[in-house]
Amino acid sequence: MDWLSGQPVIDARTPGLLGRLDSVRAALRRPPRLRVFLVGDDPASQIYVEMKRKRGVSLGVEVELTPLAASVGAAGLWSLVSQANADPGVDAILIQRPLPFAVPASLPSLQEWVSAEKDVDAFHPVHLGRLGQGAPLVMACTPAGIMALLEHYQVPLEGRLACVVGRSPLVGQPMGLALLNKDATLIQCHRKTEHLARLTAQADLLVVAAGSRGLIGKGHVKPGAVIVDVGIHRRPEGGIVGDVLADEVGAVASRMTPVPGGVGPLTVHFLFENLVTLVEARLDTRRP
Amino acid sequence: MDWLSGQPVIDARTPGLLGRLDSVRAALRRPPRLRVFLVGDDPASQIYVEMKRKRGVSLGVEVELTPLAASVGAAGLWSLVSQANADPGVDAILIQRPLPFAVPASLPSLQEWVSAEKDVDAFHPVHLGRLGQGAPLVMACTPAGIMALLEHYQVPLEGRLACVVGRSPLVGQPMGLALLNKDATLIQCHRKTEHLARLTAQADLLVVAAGSRGLIGKGHVKPGAVIVDVGIHRRPEGGIVGDVLADEVGAVASRMTPVPGGVGPLTVHFLFENLVTLVEARLDTRRP
Repeated sequence: MDWLSGQPVIDARTPGLLGRLDSVRAALRRPPRLRVFLVGDDPASQIYVEMKRKRGVSLGVEVELTPLAASVGAAGLWSLVSQANADPGVDAILIQRPLPFAVPASLPSLQEWVSAEKDVDAFHPVHLGRLGQGAPLVMACTPAGIMALLEHYQVPLEGRLACVVGRSPLVGQPMGLALLNKDATLIQCHRKTEHLARLTAQADLLVVAAGSRGLIGKGHVKPGAVIVDVGIHRRPEGGIVGDVLADEVGAVASRMTPVPGGVGPLTVHFLFENLVTLVEARLDTRRP
Repeated sequence: MDWLSGQPVIDARTPGLLGRLDSVRAALRRPPRLRVFLVGDDPASQIYVEMKRKRGVSLGVEVELTPLAASVGAAGLWSLVSQANADPGVDAILIQRPLPFAVPASLPSLQEWVSAEKDVDAFHPVHLGRLGQGAPLVMACTPAGIMALLEHYQVPLEGRLACVVGRSPLVGQPMGLALLNKDATLIQCHRKTEHLARLTAQADLLVVAAGSRGLIGKGHVKPGAVIVDVGIHRRPEGGIVGDVLADEVGAVASRMTPVPGGVGPLTVHFLFENLVTLVEARLDTRRP
């Protein structure tokens, strides 16, 4: 069994990304600027935001962090994000999830707060829709990272049977659409799926984004299949594990992403690939 | 085997649609207005547009047909559609497909020409994306009609295995997303799928939107399955048939849509359900 690690994919893509960022910086006559809204004091969110900030700084992107107390409320945050949408000095915007409050029905859905043109997370429905129509400009960072990983390791997709476990709007859903765009046949499973193992065990490629620790064992896997594990779970006894029981599945699969060190780092990397793609599109006068 | 005809679904939904149109007409102080662009002289397109016009008129919708010569060109049509987008006297817009010319890369993709707020076909990617995120405002008329048909005939979806053959952005793709939203497990197949029959024959619900006459025979069908046939093919010897070999599949399936008389009429009906939904959303000040 071979490991499909994320770092070699990042290493291979970083020079190209730096070159594109250079061009964008020259055209803007300043570094591209990412505005990050962090609301409340969730420790995991603080760690993630710090990872993103560090990566941005290492790439020469100006990362402006706006920490806010939960008391800002949904309407207050929405107003600040709207101002950032309209600010020509802000090239890209990110709202760290989860928020410590619900969004009331009187406001647009959270996915539509950041304007599509500045949405590095690619959570705006127009990005998901363009992906579904086979012409994505950017796609959500986790599926974008997985597609880059599959390409890097030359995992064949055309005509192959791919199974995605999970259908979240931010991961499972765009993942399925991206695989269809590469001519894979798609089985999409979720918590309501009956006879899960009977379906997953048919797949040449199994992408598990269920958010359910140890959901997938060797009985769920076709011998020789390629496994991508999107799950991240902190074990009470220490260490991080995924949705896949790595020991037993590793004995059956041909190739598998490690947890940690697989999909996770790619997700952070793709924030900045998306950022440069959005700025390039904005600077490209052919796109009205 | 029971037939799942479209007309009873339309008959059941029309009173509600008329009531909603009444409210909208009162709020607008005029009938809602649909602008239809018909380019070139494709006979099938002329028939489809006339069906839509008649149905609109019977519902009290003002249908303004704009016939154009192919010489208008992509840029000319795009300019006219943009004007209609900005015209407050136009509530909804439809561009009859196919166009007699290609859209050059210098223009936005055709799906994004009609603004999302006036797009009765629901072809704009933001509509597909909202569907993928589980919160559609409107969806493309064919899948919308099929979902209404499945609801009308109480076809169970939650936890069932549904297979969609076809992944076009206007039919197969939104169909799959709509079935996932109803908690079906989804297999999405297409022309690159290997071992098609092995997959389709597992499905409790088989929706065929392949555009390939007679593609699906009894060997593709699980005994007792529900079959929805989206195909429309004129036979040289006369008559209209679908993607499914109705005689042999009818002997295996439990329920099946007829061709003609199944999905087709529902597609036209849903243009006007989408129209009223869009106008209601525009009049609803809660939606910014």
